[in-house]
Amino acid sequence: MAGRTTQIPRAAADDQELRDLEEAWSDVEPATARRLLIAGVTAFAAKGYHATTTRDIAEHAGLSPGGLYVHYRSKEELLYRIALTGTRDSLEHVRRAVAGAPGDPESRLRAVVGSLVVRGARYHTTGRVIEYELGSLEDGHRAEVAAMRHEISAIVQDVIEDGARQGVFDVPDVPGTTLAVLSLAIDVARWYRASGRWAPEEIGGLYADLAWRLVRRVP
Amino acid sequence: MAGRTTQIPRAAADDQELRDLEEAWSDVEPATARRLLIAGVTAFAAKGYHATTTRDIAEHAGLSPGGLYVHYRSKEELLYRIALTGTRDSLEHVRRAVAGAPGDPESRLRAVVGSLVVRGARYHTTGRVIEYELGSLEDGHRAEVAAMRHEISAIVQDVIEDGARQGVFDVPDVPGTTLAVLSLAIDVARWYRASGRWAPEEIGGLYADLAWRLVRRVP
Repeated sequence: MAGRTTQIPRAAADDQELRDLEEAWSDVEPATARRLLIAGVTAFAAKGYHATTTRDIAEHAGLSPGGLYVHYRSKEELLYRIALTGTRDSLEHVRRAVAGAPGDPESRLRAVVGSLVVRGARYHTTGRVIEYELGSLEDGHRAEVAAMRHEISAIVQDVIEDGARQGVFDVPDVPGTTLAVLSLAIDVARWYRASGRWAPEEIGGLYADLAWRLVRRVP
Repeated sequence: MAGRTTQIPRAAADDQELRDLEEAWSDVEPATARRLLIAGVTAFAAKGYHATTTRDIAEHAGLSPGGLYVHYRSKEELLYRIALTGTRDSLEHVRRAVAGAPGDPESRLRAVVGSLVVRGARYHTTGRVIEYELGSLEDGHRAEVAAMRHEISAIVQDVIEDGARQGVFDVPDVPGTTLAVLSLAIDVARWYRASGRWAPEEIGGLYADLAWRLVRRVP
């Protein structure tokens, strides 16, 4: 009975994003393993992790029904690889953004928020799958992904704390403001659609401005 | 094969929240129908809509395996009732908050954001279930819930637009800022835990301040 209701796709994967993933994950070898990661994103986005079978994913990847097992132990391992690769990419991206920014707090904050938001928009389907399905990972896998997410949040907090210490920012509650900035960035994956009014860079710029407003010192 | 990975509860339902739901949904009659709504929130939060059976839900509600069907046509109808009731409550709550606030834009904005965030924190398990499972609703049901969400977002946008028109707010991008304010409020359901450092009212106050910072005019 439970499975009988009409399934509505949660969100179609975005074609541009699938092409971008091909490039972003080009170091995943062999190519079939990469194709399975991308097929996993597509399938999980369309009907959720639990309702997706390994056969669905293999079909999306153009493989025989058992094709997933040549490269991944299980559906859970595929989800883990998606979450790990996606989160590691974000972490590296944010680290590069901070390292490449001018040293003042405002520029650093704008660089961090802009980079997270642009990525969140460009890889919104992947981000949504990771976000919604974190709870479906096995304990150890989830802890590994959570540790990387924690590093991202620590970078954001450092930048905010540093600006507050220098007196450039006015931040009554550093952890609360860090959470708010992360919320803005994380939530982009939920609502962003490539067909909407903003290109990833535009929403990145807008949200970098908004994050700056959250912390700026008012004369 | 697909279902064999160890299931990790996504998030345990919060006891205080379950008691609050008893009261908030006290007009749902008979009591067993209400108990099923709350059991649905608990079960969907624990393992997701698709992996939950009507038997799981009936068990949570202390009923016989087929007990759900006495009150709801299907698992989907139960999810729809949860989403409808929860979203309608939020909409009414926000309407009351705006109506009860002093007329100036800052007070109105604080009232709207505070009310959404306090609710998002207090009913965070319910909010997360609704948010994550919207895509599992049948088309007509989803459209009905989406229309109410649209009304909430229109109230937020009106308040921001009004403040900008009066020159009290400085808002270069009204729709983008509305989205950001809604992101802050919606994302609370994802990260909030009753065991954390903030009571619902505290995070409501903090986020009302942050929303004000997003729009305030700087001399």
